[in-house]
Amino acid sequence: MAKQKPRTLSGFMELLPPRQAQFERMVELLRQSYSRYGFTPLDTPVIEASEVLLAKAGGETEKQIYRFTKGDSDLSLRFDLTVPLAKYVALHYAELSFPFRRFQIGKVYRGERAQRGRFREFYQADIDVIGDGRLDIVNEAEIPAIICQTFTALGLKRFQIRVNNRKVLGGFYAMLGLTEKAGDVMRTVDKLPKIGSDKVRDMLTGEEIALTGEQADEILRFISITGSNKTVLNSLEAYRGRHELFDQGLDELSTVVKYLGAFGVPEEKFAVDLTIARGLDYYTGTVYETFMTDHPEIGSICSGGRYDNLAEYYTDKQLPGVGISIGLTRLFYVLEEQGYLNDTLVTAPADVLILPMTDDLSPAIAFATRLRQAGIRAQLYTEQKKFKQKMSYADRLGVPFAAFLGEDEIKQGKVSLKDMSTGEQKLLDADQAAQAVLEALEERRNAAPIQEPEK
Amino acid sequence: MAKQKPRTLSGFMELLPPRQAQFERMVELLRQSYSRYGFTPLDTPVIEASEVLLAKAGGETEKQIYRFTKGDSDLSLRFDLTVPLAKYVALHYAELSFPFRRFQIGKVYRGERAQRGRFREFYQADIDVIGDGRLDIVNEAEIPAIICQTFTALGLKRFQIRVNNRKVLGGFYAMLGLTEKAGDVMRTVDKLPKIGSDKVRDMLTGEEIALTGEQADEILRFISITGSNKTVLNSLEAYRGRHELFDQGLDELSTVVKYLGAFGVPEEKFAVDLTIARGLDYYTGTVYETFMTDHPEIGSICSGGRYDNLAEYYTDKQLPGVGISIGLTRLFYVLEEQGYLNDTLVTAPADVLILPMTDDLSPAIAFATRLRQAGIRAQLYTEQKKFKQKMSYADRLGVPFAAFLGEDEIKQGKVSLKDMSTGEQKLLDADQAAQAVLEALEERRNAAPIQEPEK
Repeated sequence: MAKQKPRTLSGFMELLPPRQAQFERMVELLRQSYSRYGFTPLDTPVIEASEVLLAKAGGETEKQIYRFTKGDSDLSLRFDLTVPLAKYVALHYAELSFPFRRFQIGKVYRGERAQRGRFREFYQADIDVIGDGRLDIVNEAEIPAIICQTFTALGLKRFQIRVNNRKVLGGFYAMLGLTEKAGDVMRTVDKLPKIGSDKVRDMLTGEEIALTGEQADEILRFISITGSNKTVLNSLEAYRGRHELFDQGLDELSTVVKYLGAFGVPEEKFAVDLTIARGLDYYTGTVYETFMTDHPEIGSICSGGRYDNLAEYYTDKQLPGVGISIGLTRLFYVLEEQGYLNDTLVTAPADVLILPMTDDLSPAIAFATRLRQAGIRAQLYTEQKKFKQKMSYADRLGVPFAAFLGEDEIKQGKVSLKDMSTGEQKLLDADQAAQAVLEALEERRNAAPIQEPEK
Repeated sequence: MAKQKPRTLSGFMELLPPRQAQFERMVELLRQSYSRYGFTPLDTPVIEASEVLLAKAGGETEKQIYRFTKGDSDLSLRFDLTVPLAKYVALHYAELSFPFRRFQIGKVYRGERAQRGRFREFYQADIDVIGDGRLDIVNEAEIPAIICQTFTALGLKRFQIRVNNRKVLGGFYAMLGLTEKAGDVMRTVDKLPKIGSDKVRDMLTGEEIALTGEQADEILRFISITGSNKTVLNSLEAYRGRHELFDQGLDELSTVVKYLGAFGVPEEKFAVDLTIARGLDYYTGTVYETFMTDHPEIGSICSGGRYDNLAEYYTDKQLPGVGISIGLTRLFYVLEEQGYLNDTLVTAPADVLILPMTDDLSPAIAFATRLRQAGIRAQLYTEQKKFKQKMSYADRLGVPFAAFLGEDEIKQGKVSLKDMSTGEQKLLDADQAAQAVLEALEERRNAAPIQEPEK
């Protein structure tokens, strides 16, 4: 028979089992972390009606989207989890209670040009808090705690959450009479780390944006405000009273900083950073980015912010919210590239591989059943192979334990339990064996999937 | 602004939060159950190249598939998890260890005619064991144990796994010289529960199939063999020696039955049923169906079997396997329809809703942080609302506990913890409150998502 060559599309991540186990552990911890903060899990279809999904979109989104017809229907695959959330909240508004806190971890699709580290199908892991009409600032203050707790649970140690407030930026540019040029200015200022302040000044005073030298200097002075959170907030206080929006933003920023301690965020994990802007139209309050300290070149690994109108394309209801998103597939790819994945995690399909040595398999099966009842992942290996091949299988899977049941063991009602990492072998009864496995694995089972190299 | 009417496509399940929480609990238990049996989690792309996905398919599949082009690529959404598995195993053959045991829980797509209880996007929850060249019969014997343990963990009590062996059927029809007519005969015999044995006999001896009356009687006698597993196997022994394939199938069936006890499958949960055939070409050994005792009309809720050649369209390697699949979305839909979902499960987004009663929120935030560190899902409610509205929010979410922090509580370093189901309120310090919540919720948190009405 002619064979079809098997292949997986480029830009689609497909992992081998040990890597998949690490990925699953990350997802499990994300779910756990998000749940602790009172977010409810949500699932929405991957396919939506195009006119619904594209109610707002344009430009890049339209180009990248997977759009097709089936029968008479014009359908599209979701390109993020935010638009489906907006649809969900508008559609089910009457049945939801607000603030509505949901997390969603799911695949989204963008037909980007395929290149290393870019994916066309990738997981996003989002949380959002949606208010009905208004939403208290404490929700914005809580987000850094969630980011901090989540990455800490994943095993990441050296990262920093950088926070700004769009009202502070908007108010500042309004003070200078630059509200209309604020977009161009922020885009230019964004280039600061790459091109330096001289070139930014040149661009700001150039023909296109045409600021005065004074305005450019004032802007450069403003965004160069750095230091501890207290220092930055104190420096910002000097601008107070000149514009209402700025003052409001500064109050919000101060509230966010004030509650960090109670939320359990260590000082060094958090910085007010006036250069963080995050897009132009959508965000209206606190904005967040998160950087790996040793790998700033990767860019933000968790971003988001406060917005005023989640579902304006679907409903007249004003639904303000705050949310963050982790691009999980890309993050996993980067972690693997950097050697940050914890390979001491148990990634084998089983904790114990059971090797029966007799024709009647009942005792081995009963032992497997006993282990499983104790919450241990047990696999029976019953293929007719030589002992050496069986052990080689155990090695390749990376199972932590192998258990042998030969005539001798069965006569004594015992098993020989071998610790595959030490080679140590003990004759134990079923309960003792279960206990030994549970004790040995407790730590490894709860290990974090990320392990940064020591500095 | 003109609004786009929000809607979700028909045939696509989108649940409200409490139902979603129940669904997630089912998925969590499936993952746990499959893991206990040594299956590794796998994830493959939703989109595949059409020529890869459709290497085998034809007929119904081609009609139902979501197929489209993007740029130059002819793409399709997966319509099951078996074809992607075949591709995966053929593609990564050299990097896998066999037997390869994987589970996959994911969405698949079929553009079926929309009707009640039919879904175009639905979850399948599959396990498969793939051998390289050969695969021991014990793998087939283990499957009923996995089905039994899985549904028991989900909370289902009244169900039965029915098992047959394709070699027994094939051998039996060969004895009668009916190998070529076996397909037609089995399709007719399948109608027995609906049309009765007289009509089946008429059809078997009719023009189309044209069996002799003797042959028809022999077939009806054969498939009417019922009773305990022992009785059925004994009756089958009477046919032994007449055809090799039959004898081999009977040996396999006997082995499957023999190990049930050691695998922990209660006798009443399992029946050899000679009417189970499951399609014609694919399965070659043991076949499985699972029925809810009180709702046979729903059909099988978990089916599968042994096959000889998983990936023959992609590789010359012979890869026999055995697998089962649960159509999770449809099962969930049916359980909801029948009132089988356990509504005592905690489906609220949080275990404790914290209501601060003072302007400074630090003590309430610190309490939330404390609860979260203890593994409790805590939500802060900080919106400016009247007390009555706050309590109504707690009621609507269905949170098990509310915690109040007013001036009095804060002065004493305590919180007022209210059990929302009993109305009882206690003044406790943070550690006592965490302890009380954990104790009260232990049972409810581990509750099964399915609760059958008492008989």
